[in-house]
Amino acid sequence: MAAALTLSHLGEDAVIQKLLELLPSSSPDVLVGPGDDCAVVQVEGSPLCTLLKADSVVEGVHFLSGEKMQRVGWKAMCRAVSDIAAMGGRPKHALVTIAAGPSTPVEELLELYRGLAKAASTYGVSVVGGETGKTLGALVCSVFLTGAVEGSRCLLRSGGRPGDRLYVTGRLGGSLQSGRHLDFEPRLEEACWLAEQRCVSAMMDVSDGLGADVPRMARASGCGVEVDPARVPCNPGCGVREAFNDGEDFELLLAVPAAKAEALEREWSARFSAVPLTQIGCLREAGEGFQPEELFKQGGYNHFQ
Amino acid sequence: MAAALTLSHLGEDAVIQKLLELLPSSSPDVLVGPGDDCAVVQVEGSPLCTLLKADSVVEGVHFLSGEKMQRVGWKAMCRAVSDIAAMGGRPKHALVTIAAGPSTPVEELLELYRGLAKAASTYGVSVVGGETGKTLGALVCSVFLTGAVEGSRCLLRSGGRPGDRLYVTGRLGGSLQSGRHLDFEPRLEEACWLAEQRCVSAMMDVSDGLGADVPRMARASGCGVEVDPARVPCNPGCGVREAFNDGEDFELLLAVPAAKAEALEREWSARFSAVPLTQIGCLREAGEGFQPEELFKQGGYNHFQ
Repeated sequence: MAAALTLSHLGEDAVIQKLLELLPSSSPDVLVGPGDDCAVVQVEGSPLCTLLKADSVVEGVHFLSGEKMQRVGWKAMCRAVSDIAAMGGRPKHALVTIAAGPSTPVEELLELYRGLAKAASTYGVSVVGGETGKTLGALVCSVFLTGAVEGSRCLLRSGGRPGDRLYVTGRLGGSLQSGRHLDFEPRLEEACWLAEQRCVSAMMDVSDGLGADVPRMARASGCGVEVDPARVPCNPGCGVREAFNDGEDFELLLAVPAAKAEALEREWSARFSAVPLTQIGCLREAGEGFQPEELFKQGGYNHFQ
Repeated sequence: MAAALTLSHLGEDAVIQKLLELLPSSSPDVLVGPGDDCAVVQVEGSPLCTLLKADSVVEGVHFLSGEKMQRVGWKAMCRAVSDIAAMGGRPKHALVTIAAGPSTPVEELLELYRGLAKAASTYGVSVVGGETGKTLGALVCSVFLTGAVEGSRCLLRSGGRPGDRLYVTGRLGGSLQSGRHLDFEPRLEEACWLAEQRCVSAMMDVSDGLGADVPRMARASGCGVEVDPARVPCNPGCGVREAFNDGEDFELLLAVPAAKAEALEREWSARFSAVPLTQIGCLREAGEGFQPEELFKQGGYNHFQ
C-alpha cells in the first residue's frame, strides 16, 4: 500500500493550490482573491479598497520556546503590517487569537500582548477583538488585519512586465540568526510612498527568501526573470545563499518599468537615505532568463520541508 | 517562591480582561471593540457597519483526533457565521489559516477545506485567502470572517434593560456527545429576521452554555437576571445541568422588552415553526435576581479550566 501523501512531500505552495481549487467561485465584490500578499475586497459604498490579511506565528517554527514574548508579539503584528504595506495600503483594524497551553503563565501572555500593543500603536492599528483559547500543543498567535488603499494605488504581484527592473529594499539574509526577525520594522512608510509615485508595476514583501519570492512575482506576472547574484544586498556575515534561503527579511520586492527607474532611484535616495533600494535584476519575457521554477530550485524558505 | 499564575488558575474571561487593559485606546472608527460576539467598525464612505470575527477550532479541544475533517471544516466556518448572525449581520469574506503537523496527509486538509467550502457556499461567504503553515502540535484551523449590517439593526449584548424577557432559540445541551457540534446550522436567517423586527434589545449566540453566556449578557447590560430552570428547552437526554454546562449549542440568546414580546412570539411561530423560541427568564435591576457572578458559579463552559 502506498504511503499517504503528506504536507512534507508536497510543500506549502502546492498544497495551497490544491486547497484553492475546492473553493466556490467568488462574488463580484472580491477584487483579488487568494495568492497575493493580501486579499482585496470592495465594501459597499466605500471609495477605498479593503485589504484583508491573516498571519500566524507558531512556537518552534517562527520563534523558539523561551523567547521573550514581547518580541514575539511585536513580530506577530508586524508580519501582517508588512503584507498590508506591500499592497500600498495602511493597516486599520486587527483581531488577535492566541492558542496556548493551560499551564502557560499569564505573565507570558501579558508580555505577548504588550508587544502586539506596541506594534499596533506604532503603525496606527486598532486591536478590536480576538480570542484566547487553549491548545494542547505549541503556542500559536494569529493576527487578522484589515487595511485600506485607494484602488488606483493598490500594488499586486501580477503587474510586472518584461523589461521591468527588479528592486529590493534594505539588505537580506541572516534574519533568524541575528534575531532581526523579532524586531524588524515593516516598510510601511516606504511602501506607501512607492504606491503614491505611481511608477511601480508590481510589489510584494520578501518573507520567504528571494529564492521563493522572486519566482512568485515572476509567475504571477507571467514573466521569466533574471537575477544577478552579485547585486543582491546582503546583511553582514551573509551571502547570496542566505539572501535566497533564509527568509523572514520583510523587505519589499518591486518591479519598475525601465523608463521610470532612474527617477525613482534618485527620489528614493533623497527621501530614504538610510535604506538602500537596490536593483537585483529584471523581468524577462516568459521563456527567457531563468524560469520561475528553475530559480525556485535554488532555494527559498518553504514550510513543511 | 510562589508558583506563576497560569491560564488554568485565572480562566478565559479574566485573562482576556487583563489583556484588553494593555491595548491602546481605539480610534473613532471603532464602534464596538472587544467583548461582544464581533467587533463593529466603520469603513470610510460605507453606509453599512463592518463586523469582524476571529474564531479557531483546535484538535483535542473542539474536535477529537481522528474526526472526519469535512465536519471539522464545516464547524470551523459555522462557528464564525454564528457570531456574525448574532449581531444581526450577514457574513461576507473569510480568511482561513491552518496550522498542521508536517506529516498530516494532504487528503485530510482537502477534506477540511471541502467542509469549509460547503459552509461558505451555504451561507454566502467568499473565502478570499488565508495561510497554511506548519505546527509541531495539534491542528488549529482559524477562520477570520467579515460581515455587514445596517447600523440601526446591529444587535449588541449590552442593549438589555431590566424587565426584558430572555429567550433562547432551539434546544440546549449534549452537543458534544451527540456530534451536533460538528454539523449544526447557525441561526443566520432567524437572526437576520429578528434584527429586522427592531424589537430585540440584546442578542448573542450561546456557545459556552447558558451558565456562562446568560451572565455575560446580564453583565454587559448592567442588569441582574432571573432564569427559571424548568423552562430551559433541553435536547433529548439532557437536563438543565447540560444546558448550563455543555456549550457548543450555537443557538441565539435574546432580550425582548415585555411590551413587544407576545407579538414577536406569534410572528416567530408562524415563520420558524420548526425552531422553538422559548422564554427562559428575564433581566432584572442590577442587584436583583441572580447576579451574573452567582449564576456563573453554577457552571458554563470555560476554556483553560
